[in-house]
Amino acid sequence: MAEIVVVFHSGYGHTQRIAQQVADGADAQLIAVDADGNLPAGGWETLAAADAIVFGSPTYMGGPSWQFKKFADASSKVWFTQGWKNKLFAGFTNSAAMNGDKGATITYLWQLAMQHGGLWVSLGIMPSNDKAARRDSPNYVGGYAGLLATSPTDAKPEEMAKGDLDTAYAFGQRIAEVARSRSKG
Amino acid sequence: MAEIVVVFHSGYGHTQRIAQQVADGADAQLIAVDADGNLPAGGWETLAAADAIVFGSPTYMGGPSWQFKKFADASSKVWFTQGWKNKLFAGFTNSAAMNGDKGATITYLWQLAMQHGGLWVSLGIMPSNDKAARRDSPNYVGGYAGLLATSPTDAKPEEMAKGDLDTAYAFGQRIAEVARSRSKG
Amino acid sequence: MAEIVVVFHSGYGHTQRIAQQVADGADAQLIAVDADGNLPAGGWETLAAADAIVFGSPTYMGGPSWQFKKFADASSKVWFTQGWKNKLFAGFTNSAAMNGDKGATITYLWQLAMQHGGLWVSLGIMPSNDKAARRDSPNYVGGYAGLLATSPTDAKPEEMAKGDLDTAYAFGQRIAEVARSRSKG
Amino acid sequence: MAEIVVVFHSGYGHTQRIAQQVADGADAQLIAVDADGNLPAGGWETLAAADAIVFGSPTYMGGPSWQFKKFADASSKVWFTQGWKNKLFAGFTNSAAMNGDKGATITYLWQLAMQHGGLWVSLGIMPSNDKAARRDSPNYVGGYAGLLATSPTDAKPEEMAKGDLDTAYAFGQRIAEVARSRSKG
Repeated sequence: MAEIVVVFHSGYGHTQRIAQQVADGADAQLIAVDADGNLPAGGWETLAAADAIVFGSPTYMGGPSWQFKKFADASSKVWFTQGWKNKLFAGFTNSAAMNGDKGATITYLWQLAMQHGGLWVSLGIMPSNDKAARRDSPNYVGGYAGLLATSPTDAKPEEMAKGDLDTAYAFGQRIAEVARSRSKG
Repeated sequence: MAEIVVVFHSGYGHTQRIAQQVADGADAQLIAVDADGNLPAGGWETLAAADAIVFGSPTYMGGPSWQFKKFADASSKVWFTQGWKNKLFAGFTNSAAMNGDKGATITYLWQLAMQHGGLWVSLGIMPSNDKAARRDSPNYVGGYAGLLATSPTDAKPEEMAKGDLDTAYAFGQRIAEVARSRSKG
Repeated sequence: MAEIVVVFHSGYGHTQRIAQQVADGADAQLIAVDADGNLPAGGWETLAAADAIVFGSPTYMGGPSWQFKKFADASSKVWFTQGWKNKLFAGFTNSAAMNGDKGATITYLWQLAMQHGGLWVSLGIMPSNDKAARRDSPNYVGGYAGLLATSPTDAKPEEMAKGDLDTAYAFGQRIAEVARSRSKG
Repeated sequence: MAEIVVVFHSGYGHTQRIAQQVADGADAQLIAVDADGNLPAGGWETLAAADAIVFGSPTYMGGPSWQFKKFADASSKVWFTQGWKNKLFAGFTNSAAMNGDKGATITYLWQLAMQHGGLWVSLGIMPSNDKAARRDSPNYVGGYAGLLATSPTDAKPEEMAKGDLDTAYAFGQRIAEVARSRSKG
């Protein structure tokens, strides 16, 4: 079985809920980047052993949170020896506005995976974009390169859209499937 | 008074409606890129005389339409002599999904303006992103670098969201105001 | 054995030389987008049968050529049924300046692959970026997400940098290796 | 006279040298983001009073340094009231490889300026991209949207390319000129 790890930062709990859904769908391990941008003990070793790494960060001021970026910068030690080369990578983000530069965060998560010599997995779930689409339809927010969630600025984590959470779970399943198809050789 | 030109391509009429709103708000002239990617007679001369140029394109397959790109490639003649240097630029796009890579199209429109040595004007209208926000609230789609409109795949141009159209009009007004503040010297 | 196809547009022959190198390294078939943005007869069928698709385009005015974009827009028919879902994708570009917005073109090629539900393969060759690096060192131009080539504006295709051509060949080999590792299951 | 402020983070001194050149060319004040991502006393007040803000950051792992991002995230307080709306913004970055995802960092700096409702100024200096171009020719690295510098991984700040430093100085002059043209009204 493929080892999948979701490494994420969450400022207020919304991104954490998405992370949990992706992890549940992928049967993955969760690693939280803390409020100072650091990993828990054993975090780097867990990442080193993974077949697939899923990056998650809120979108703050048009990009990933500084705590996530601190983790990314710290991964330069691994980059130096290309220790994560050929791993699978994927990503997700959450912000308050429908668009709100979420695409910029996903693009950054991809750039990071590319620096590490990885393979990037798309969301693979078509957007719900006709007149019949509702807020809880699959991929209503409309991502392609990663999972995008929208949580109004005054919504608590428990108020997050069911459709976003369900899409996150399905994304986790997809990542696991792609990872399995590679490791069965 | 500042001369403002909106140059756009529209495949099915949605982007054209946005273009009309921006032009109305800015008291601007409209130039349509045709279905073969060409400008009407006098188009290049009108652009040369403009103080501000607003680019508009639908988002197709994760970027601007090929017709808009053909116009952009043809502008390499102007680029060669930096004929548009220091003009103001801004941009807008429309697609069916809430996100749907609209940010990628706006980023391209900006890259094009940058190649021409221009200045880029942000949308300047805060997103409506709390629980009270409705589809017709200002900047509900949540752009920052340009105006983003969402029209479901089976919605006719006349069915476009009033909020997107109003935001486009206000964006036109803003562009005109920024243009005037530069030319009054 | 994995079927790999390189689909590219070239305006003046430089991108074609890179395409040939990638194809030689990957033992891939070449499909040229023509000057009107169309594929040759059988092109779409060949792409449908591929395990991996490599996109190539020059960087013109801060993005892919309009001819490549016309091909991308035409692929919306395949997108509609997600006919290319889970295929491997990769990309390359060429322009005259060292940077010259090549990264924007690679990012677009990735967005296109993401719309198609694909997996994106990084270059996987570390940049030559110390004082000892020479123009013909591996990946001197310094790409991560794809292969970047630089050809001065007055250089003929036969004058292209050997280092860029060698890196393109090695990139082709890498793509083939990743494709094989997936299909051997 | 226009007040211009260069706010930057530098890890090893290379980005600082570029910052100094831009500031000299623009007759601007310098504010350094420190190793913990904080501004010196009075930093926010100085930024509030500026007509133009120039962002500078090294490119680490495919984006701005976490210290710069921490500053960006802290600017959300200003963003909330759109305190920097309509200011001019520009940006620069340095990394070891010729490309090395510098474009991604510049794109982020622009996203940040857009969130703040600003105007973005292009580099405005054509790249040196023919066969006669040398490492010390103007804009040899080939940026459009901002100033790009390349310093090999084993090069000290005092070994930086004269051409990059000269281009940074000229960029500072350009920013001052654009700022003056706006404020003379």
